[in-house]
Amino acid sequence: MKITIIGVGLIGGSMALKLKAKGFASYVFGVDQNENHLLEAKERGIIDEASTLENAVSHSDLVIIAIPVDASRKILPGILDLVTENQTVMDAGSTKSGIVNAVKNHPNRNRFVAFHPMWGTENSGPKSAVSESFAGRAAVICDREQSSEDALKTVENTAENLDMHLIYMNADDHDVHAAYISHISHITSYALANTVLEKEREEDTIFQLASTGFSSTVRLAKSHPEMWVPIFKQNKENVLDVLNEHISQLRKFKSALEKENYELLEELIRNANKIRGILEK
Amino acid sequence: MKITIIGVGLIGGSMALKLKAKGFASYVFGVDQNENHLLEAKERGIIDEASTLENAVSHSDLVIIAIPVDASRKILPGILDLVTENQTVMDAGSTKSGIVNAVKNHPNRNRFVAFHPMWGTENSGPKSAVSESFAGRAAVICDREQSSEDALKTVENTAENLDMHLIYMNADDHDVHAAYISHISHITSYALANTVLEKEREEDTIFQLASTGFSSTVRLAKSHPEMWVPIFKQNKENVLDVLNEHISQLRKFKSALEKENYELLEELIRNANKIRGILEK
Repeated sequence: MKITIIGVGLIGGSMALKLKAKGFASYVFGVDQNENHLLEAKERGIIDEASTLENAVSHSDLVIIAIPVDASRKILPGILDLVTENQTVMDAGSTKSGIVNAVKNHPNRNRFVAFHPMWGTENSGPKSAVSESFAGRAAVICDREQSSEDALKTVENTAENLDMHLIYMNADDHDVHAAYISHISHITSYALANTVLEKEREEDTIFQLASTGFSSTVRLAKSHPEMWVPIFKQNKENVLDVLNEHISQLRKFKSALEKENYELLEELIRNANKIRGILEK
Repeated sequence: MKITIIGVGLIGGSMALKLKAKGFASYVFGVDQNENHLLEAKERGIIDEASTLENAVSHSDLVIIAIPVDASRKILPGILDLVTENQTVMDAGSTKSGIVNAVKNHPNRNRFVAFHPMWGTENSGPKSAVSESFAGRAAVICDREQSSEDALKTVENTAENLDMHLIYMNADDHDVHAAYISHISHITSYALANTVLEKEREEDTIFQLASTGFSSTVRLAKSHPEMWVPIFKQNKENVLDVLNEHISQLRKFKSALEKENYELLEELIRNANKIRGILEK
């Protein structure tokens, strides 16, 4: 199968590496605004050929869009204009309502499958791409009834070749869950980094003392705004909803400490501990 | 050197394993209120003998206290009552002002060295102990001028045998920095877990969708209240100070989203990204 990867970064690059290793992708066209990324991707064997969008799409069975969610939403209608009923287009974005709404009336809507692989790191660019990134992780397909059966099958096969397991839901539900499970973690982590940067003026002390716990909690704060501002923008209402709850949960800790109510503090912590049972089912 | 480990859990157990592996500890007495932990520690080769506190201390060159910080503060004066000028006592607690104040007028204060290894996980008990846990991490020694030179040297040798590098500071400064670098991360993580548990009623969805990012940010929320309530209690003022700043940083994200001020949102994220440069110096 010939594949186009639009955005040869962490996500697109990792997909290409794995799909080539599996023999699922026989030839990979790379499309990217960043010339250096294309060169790097070629060197690392992520892509076989750097190409224009039009040329790549016209020669591909499958087009994978792996760029920030605002750019994905903009580019998708034009790609659907180009494809025939033998081609499939999928994205890899962290929000789904925006992109499905952008093409809901497009005559080729059924060639598109809305896809979200539940994996990422704080790094970016083709140099961060790793073949085994997605193995064992979940992937979400949204609004599957809007896609043709064969297009859906192609994306399901792609997920299988990435060694991912599939979950199906509608785009609106996806965005609510993603706000809880992914987007709020990033805001928390950014705000924690800003807190420490604001309060702890001795950078050397941060560096020297930073424990594994701190590094783990603040890891996501390294993630780029190019990817995350569009996500927060597209999922604004859900993110605000969860953010308000998060601030109110932090206020409970504050109040327990201020009032020296250590029974309440213990109760709050015991409740939080339940996450272990859920994550390690 | 004969060593007593009080609290044969994650921290005490990991120290014992490493110090025995290095040949630094020739014999290890284990003291613990939990009989099962003593049996487990004996089985795993963490300790050579389960013992009463009095017997263990009387036969040891070095006594390591590795129990929650409130219990450490209570037990230390009685241990200092028992030791001679040939013995050394150290702790491993995450707060330092409380414990040094508890013994500041003790006639044997100089036999005690206040110690904090900057490592831990969300797990507990001797089954979690791992020999290489501390390797490459920082350890803090507080108020070194209050300890005898030979006691200090013994603890410095211990840290060296744990493959840790040492930082020296006074206990009050330590507690301020620990609030920034470690304690606030735990509150953030607990509050995030409670947010998700409160808002996301579909536990299966949490389990299925939980990405690496979420798991990483929420990891510390698995940490037990037995350890953490005493830490927050002893470091209340500093933790509240940082917690207030953290809530105000989250409010900035909230305000940027509510006002759709995406330039501000980007600025907040770019600022948070600076943590990468500091952590990866």
